[in-house]
Amino acid sequence: MKEKIIEPKTLPGFMELLPEKQILFNQMIDKIRQSYEMFGFLPLDTPIIELSEILLAKAGGETQKQIYRFEKGENDLSLRFDLTVPLAKYVCMHKNEIAFPFRRYQIGKVYRGEKPQKGRYREFYQCDIDIIGDEKLDIIFDAEMPSVIYSTFNTLGFSDFTIHINNRKILNGLFEELNLKEKVTDILRIIDKIEKIGEEAVKIELKKIDIKEEKIEKIIDFIYIDGSNNEKLEKLINLNINNETFLSGIKEIKEVMEYTKIFGVPEENLEFDLTIARGLDYYTGTVYETFLNKYKELGSICSGGRYDNLAQNYTEKTFPGVGISIGLSRLFYQLNEVNLIKEEKKSIAKVLVVSMDEKLDKAIEVATALRNKNIPTEVYIQNKKIKSKFKYADKLKIPYVAVIGEEELKNNTVTLKNMETGEQEELKIEEVIKKLL
Amino acid sequence: MKEKIIEPKTLPGFMELLPEKQILFNQMIDKIRQSYEMFGFLPLDTPIIELSEILLAKAGGETQKQIYRFEKGENDLSLRFDLTVPLAKYVCMHKNEIAFPFRRYQIGKVYRGEKPQKGRYREFYQCDIDIIGDEKLDIIFDAEMPSVIYSTFNTLGFSDFTIHINNRKILNGLFEELNLKEKVTDILRIIDKIEKIGEEAVKIELKKIDIKEEKIEKIIDFIYIDGSNNEKLEKLINLNINNETFLSGIKEIKEVMEYTKIFGVPEENLEFDLTIARGLDYYTGTVYETFLNKYKELGSICSGGRYDNLAQNYTEKTFPGVGISIGLSRLFYQLNEVNLIKEEKKSIAKVLVVSMDEKLDKAIEVATALRNKNIPTEVYIQNKKIKSKFKYADKLKIPYVAVIGEEELKNNTVTLKNMETGEQEELKIEEVIKKLL
Repeated sequence: MKEKIIEPKTLPGFMELLPEKQILFNQMIDKIRQSYEMFGFLPLDTPIIELSEILLAKAGGETQKQIYRFEKGENDLSLRFDLTVPLAKYVCMHKNEIAFPFRRYQIGKVYRGEKPQKGRYREFYQCDIDIIGDEKLDIIFDAEMPSVIYSTFNTLGFSDFTIHINNRKILNGLFEELNLKEKVTDILRIIDKIEKIGEEAVKIELKKIDIKEEKIEKIIDFIYIDGSNNEKLEKLINLNINNETFLSGIKEIKEVMEYTKIFGVPEENLEFDLTIARGLDYYTGTVYETFLNKYKELGSICSGGRYDNLAQNYTEKTFPGVGISIGLSRLFYQLNEVNLIKEEKKSIAKVLVVSMDEKLDKAIEVATALRNKNIPTEVYIQNKKIKSKFKYADKLKIPYVAVIGEEELKNNTVTLKNMETGEQEELKIEEVIKKLL
Repeated sequence: MKEKIIEPKTLPGFMELLPEKQILFNQMIDKIRQSYEMFGFLPLDTPIIELSEILLAKAGGETQKQIYRFEKGENDLSLRFDLTVPLAKYVCMHKNEIAFPFRRYQIGKVYRGEKPQKGRYREFYQCDIDIIGDEKLDIIFDAEMPSVIYSTFNTLGFSDFTIHINNRKILNGLFEELNLKEKVTDILRIIDKIEKIGEEAVKIELKKIDIKEEKIEKIIDFIYIDGSNNEKLEKLINLNINNETFLSGIKEIKEVMEYTKIFGVPEENLEFDLTIARGLDYYTGTVYETFLNKYKELGSICSGGRYDNLAQNYTEKTFPGVGISIGLSRLFYQLNEVNLIKEEKKSIAKVLVVSMDEKLDKAIEVATALRNKNIPTEVYIQNKKIKSKFKYADKLKIPYVAVIGEEELKNNTVTLKNMETGEQEELKIEEVIKKLL
């Protein structure tokens, strides 16, 4: 009874790594998690499937098109496309059980049916932290975010990166002043692209939405205010704009920058950048983007901001919040492409125990002794020639092979071979443990 | 512009925990992963969405009904319902890149649209390990599995559990001998339920598929052979059944039990149990189930077995394998219900740093110093009364609060309060670090 053979394949746009890459990917996840937990963020794991009416309560056109949506029984279901909407749902549902300010992290897969292309995935990991307040959330939390970003990318092995920071109230205030308030959303969306498309293209797009040339000039001049962080702040203050929103933005960014210093973020890693607006409507105050200084073409590797109201679609209550997100699948792909992944270990097992002959008793005994000391150890069990066993260790990049032959059996030792240097020495188990710990 | 309020809710059958439970859940995942890695299993992370033709290549009726299946563009897609089918696909696709025997673990969510009921989830975690051979896989691997199960549940804090082990060739051989070969699948499926439905119900079901009374008696006698593991083995040998399959089963189980001892599994944790058959067709040799001795009603908490051919739907090649799986979401629910979860830590932050007044400079400085020593630390940032700050620590079960007031500022100290005992002492930062490390 022969069954039909189906060609095995994985869907395009879905990351599926070889174990050696998966080890590196998991190391990045572990470090991000470790860094988030170091700041006391609580773990959350929400379902990947939600009711469509919940997920799409606010979603705009692009999201609607990209979403994985289907019916099951009588339910209209969707796969989550980010971790923020599920958080909003969660906070509303559990507002009486959780403690505020609610600090949570979530690391999980999200789904967007974009056109697959190099480094763009339809299933990808997001690593988010958010702090949600009950009606109020002090501005100092906005200064804690850059310190988490700083610590996280440090933990990942990076130092040459800059966190760009801005406050949307400054821009909004200016637009109020210029009588362009009703076009703010459009203008911000256009300005946000200045790094990508350049000044001229931005001007053209602003013209298209009927903004007069002189006002366009003012906007451009404004976002190009330069100098050090403090100089920019001073120049802004010297504009003497007496708009309430504007002044509140200035006050906030000043406080955030001061506290960021207290939080230990070095000045060279933080830049007050008036060109950062973030495309999404819902940011209302501080916004962040992070760039690797030597690889700015990778785009922002960690972004986020402050929002006044997380969950307006689900409740009359106000939950202000601030958060950041790392799109890890894409970041991993990019870092891998430019060879920037810091490898700490390349294998799971630290040592492969092999027997010269078929008998495995001693090999298993040695392995158990090593595992009892928390040294990840594999026994080569399949009956193969010794050469194949070494080849296996090599392919898996296992750094040590412990060989047990007649001599070693007699002496109650193993011969430990360093697979990188080729050095080998006959050692007692206790000495092996000491060496590998 | 008021938007419509949508009632936030989570789909029934989808686990969504409060942070304090999520911390415990994550600890279980971490320990399972740690235990799997200790044996050198490699990590894998395959997509949750696959082509339906791949996932359903072999699936039977029940699976077909339960699956989450939908169309997106021109693709007929499904959510994975286990981690074994994706593994089969993966091994076929990457057979030239991976090293055999291929030892992989995968911990991830799978989806089955069952009727939601207490402790049954539609989205749940499976924690699998499998070892896949290229054409051949020695029987000793079957003895390594119980040692991984043993180590894993030990790591999870359990000692009073029994791994039940059997070999399907023994049963199959018997059925060949009884001329019931063409009914083997049905009979195994019925026998498998003996723990659940009892001997009488099994007899009735066997009768229903037209098995003669005398043969039923023989089957029941057979699976109730009792005594110690060795006594059972002896009694089986003494039946003098000269069937090839039967004898091969005896030989295998004997070898597996011998090696299990060498692998360090205590005799009291392993039981040769002729009633274990496992409902799934694809097991062909050794099978495992694991029970908590004092909570047998929970059912098997870790099951698996040996299969001759992992990927027959995708390739002409033969990939024999052996594996086990823990259904973690259900297990977590059950352990939680009977209060059996071993808590190691109840909070993420080990200490909450609070300031008596509004100034946070010193609090942040202290927190940074603690984090630099890898002590997870949270600063209470929101401007609240000191009482609220302690209440927050209490609610989050944070074990220590470090208070900074006027005195402490002057003395360059903090007052560290143990939240469980209520004890407090004024300490220098270095002393706090020493205490909390």
